Amino acid sequence: MKHEVGRRSIKRMRIKIADAPGALGAFTTRLGEFGVRFGEITTASVGRSSRVRDVDVIAPDEATFDRVCDAVRAMDGVDLLGVTDVVRERHLGGKIATKAQVAVRSLDDLGIVYTPGVASMCLQIAAEPELAWRYTAIPNTVAIVTNGTAILGLGDIGAVAGMPVMEGKAVLFDLLAGVSGVPILIESRDPRVIVDAVTAIAPTFGAIKLEDIRAPECFEIEERLDAALDIPVLHDDQHGTAVVVLAALLNIARIRHLNLRRSRVGIIGLGAAGSGIQRLLTAYGVETIHGADINPQMLARFESFGGRASDLAGVMTAADMVIATTGVPGLIKADMVRPKQVILALSNPDPEIDPEAALAAGAAFAADGKAVNNALAFPGLFRGALDAHATRINDAMKIAAAKEIAARAPEGELTPPILDRELHAAVAAAVREAALTTGDVRHSRRLEV
Amino acid sequence: MKHEVGRRSIKRMRIKIADAPGALGAFTTRLGEFGVRFGEITTASVGRSSRVRDVDVIAPDEATFDRVCDAVRAMDGVDLLGVTDVVRERHLGGKIATKAQVAVRSLDDLGIVYTPGVASMCLQIAAEPELAWRYTAIPNTVAIVTNGTAILGLGDIGAVAGMPVMEGKAVLFDLLAGVSGVPILIESRDPRVIVDAVTAIAPTFGAIKLEDIRAPECFEIEERLDAALDIPVLHDDQHGTAVVVLAALLNIARIRHLNLRRSRVGIIGLGAAGSGIQRLLTAYGVETIHGADINPQMLARFESFGGRASDLAGVMTAADMVIATTGVPGLIKADMVRPKQVILALSNPDPEIDPEAALAAGAAFAADGKAVNNALAFPGLFRGALDAHATRINDAMKIAAAKEIAARAPEGELTPPILDRELHAAVAAAVREAALTTGDVRHSRRLEV
Repeated sequence: MKHEVGRRSIKRMRIKIADAPGALGAFTTRLGEFGVRFGEITTASVGRSSRVRDVDVIAPDEATFDRVCDAVRAMDGVDLLGVTDVVRERHLGGKIATKAQVAVRSLDDLGIVYTPGVASMCLQIAAEPELAWRYTAIPNTVAIVTNGTAILGLGDIGAVAGMPVMEGKAVLFDLLAGVSGVPILIESRDPRVIVDAVTAIAPTFGAIKLEDIRAPECFEIEERLDAALDIPVLHDDQHGTAVVVLAALLNIARIRHLNLRRSRVGIIGLGAAGSGIQRLLTAYGVETIHGADINPQMLARFESFGGRASDLAGVMTAADMVIATTGVPGLIKADMVRPKQVILALSNPDPEIDPEAALAAGAAFAADGKAVNNALAFPGLFRGALDAHATRINDAMKIAAAKEIAARAPEGELTPPILDRELHAAVAAAVREAALTTGDVRHSRRLEV
Repeated sequence: MKHEVGRRSIKRMRIKIADAPGALGAFTTRLGEFGVRFGEITTASVGRSSRVRDVDVIAPDEATFDRVCDAVRAMDGVDLLGVTDVVRERHLGGKIATKAQVAVRSLDDLGIVYTPGVASMCLQIAAEPELAWRYTAIPNTVAIVTNGTAILGLGDIGAVAGMPVMEGKAVLFDLLAGVSGVPILIESRDPRVIVDAVTAIAPTFGAIKLEDIRAPECFEIEERLDAALDIPVLHDDQHGTAVVVLAALLNIARIRHLNLRRSRVGIIGLGAAGSGIQRLLTAYGVETIHGADINPQMLARFESFGGRASDLAGVMTAADMVIATTGVPGLIKADMVRPKQVILALSNPDPEIDPEAALAAGAAFAADGKAVNNALAFPGLFRGALDAHATRINDAMKIAAAKEIAARAPEGELTPPILDRELHAAVAAAVREAALTTGDVRHSRRLEV
């Protein structure tokens, strides 16, 4: 089931269809019979009695999509004019580029941004290194480092195959927070190789974002880099996810009138995400956390951070709030759910238990991973850390981010909309403030404040 | 004299000055007495009988600029309204950024460039790795790697202090050739550290540009990376400069009706630039190259590539065409110049001999480094190599670039204007063609051709 997420087929159909009541209904109903969902439906042109429409079709897999095309061809009143692979189309040539942020219209301009003018800037920085934080791109640039061992839910597919995800992160960094994300691909499973390479190139960056590196190596890599470098190092799969889960739990506690710190929390799956969630909830003040994992090494790690080791049944019995991050769809059966339990079944795209099923089984609240996207957290977390010239992203900064995300969720929702730039600016401001308050910022910066 | 280039002061004066014949003449003449040169002079506003002008002033150093300001304040008919540090102003916040090249206007867009749509792109690349050359930014991205040991003529000032130069290269890559340049700063003088780090992160890039790394380490670093990687690795200070020098010599030979291959060439200074020039001229077919360097190691290297070791006086006596790349202003005295000699004194900003002085001493042709800027070569060299999916930038590609640059020089000039995008496109096309012809391209690409 690991590759389920990648099997999904997203295609754009161009169809000619009657512009009459019932026509689109018949079309979409017929496709629904194949398990198809729809993205955007736009109009390419309008004829006398028909429209040419572009319909984004999300099918469970390519074979199903092929059968859907056959079905459309067999329909009366619909012509299938063409099919576009929208995913390939949008990825053609890559999704990011390094762009000049200064104009060079003349040789005089060139003489300022390049030789000879640039030389005086270099000498000024050589004499006063902190000027690099004002007059270079370094403090706005974040390395997005992966070795490709845990790309999304796809597993160890290699760093180059993971590049579209790293570019996607850089796209969101730019659009949501004005951060320059630079993918760094390292094809090695050896933590030493990754630590050495990132340490060597670290002067280039204002922060390091580790991404889609599998457990347990991700723990060692993050710890060693954090110890070696004076800039923030953050493994997003651990801590970005944890921030959003804490935000969701804060809203659930508010809605359900629960005391989160006094609640008994259970975590099923103690890999990167589960471990990060444990540590942040502990830092927030949650006193009792039960955990389960089939890997004894992960369970031992969980205990070392104060967790209570258990198993799936034990966690389901003991916990008021259950968070599942196992990657195993359907792991939680309806008869395991206790009345009034809160259940976040976060594995994407198919959760450990369907929220509807959990509610039917007596859960007080249930959600899946759609509302817990770490893109809610990482742009503002890094923007705020960079703005503060932070040396790390500490627990206070993560908790500040979680509170801000929680506070901005619309009534009745666990989390706010991802594409809201104001959200990310507000998260950044809260994170920056927490960094300055806790003092984990560069010395020169601290003097200024 | 090493830091001469960085001592130069570039400032913008805002002055109020009479809008009458003679006023600007008196102002510029007075400043000229201090050794000041002028960049752009623009009008900020026009009054009844005066103008407010912004005047870019290039003074030999900051102390001189301060005296110039005093002199302006003492002038009748001129008010000094303010001074802007244009270099700092243009560098504020850095000169480059990673920007999204796709729009994300809706959650449907997000679902294509990020999860879940991106997963299918990742799986396609995992199954067919060559797709990374179409559907990621990798084949358009060049690492600009420095350890800061030979930044411009400034020497070993460190990689971070060299960042404004690396950003300047990335600016030119973007504006002139649409290449994504990614600075990579490594604070180490140990070739092993640099080779290991760049090897580890190489899957991220379509090519590696080594920059401002001192000799002799630059030779070892380039050779080892070239052997280890299947993408182009090019030390610009060696080969970019060599391409432009070859272009200049081709034009000199044409103008002077000389046979370049049969000419006796002399190279004074056998560091990165001198060594690269030797090797490219040899590859082009120049049979006799005399060389001089105060460092015996460099001289031995020169001999190992077929050069004739000599000294300054010996080279000046033996060579028809002399190329000096020593960084020592005034090294060549007028009495060393032989009649009809061609002299390229390339050290910036102050050449080994002033071209006027060389011509007065009997040289047939003389030029300094202004016409031999490696920004003429590197954008097109890399663009062409990337377009061909080249595995290296071989001699044929460099010679193709040199010929194209030479051919595009206006009549009477050694080289064409740097900011002409058509030049760089033409160089790229010539380089691409040479790569395909010589076959130093990725296997899959070769099959397509």
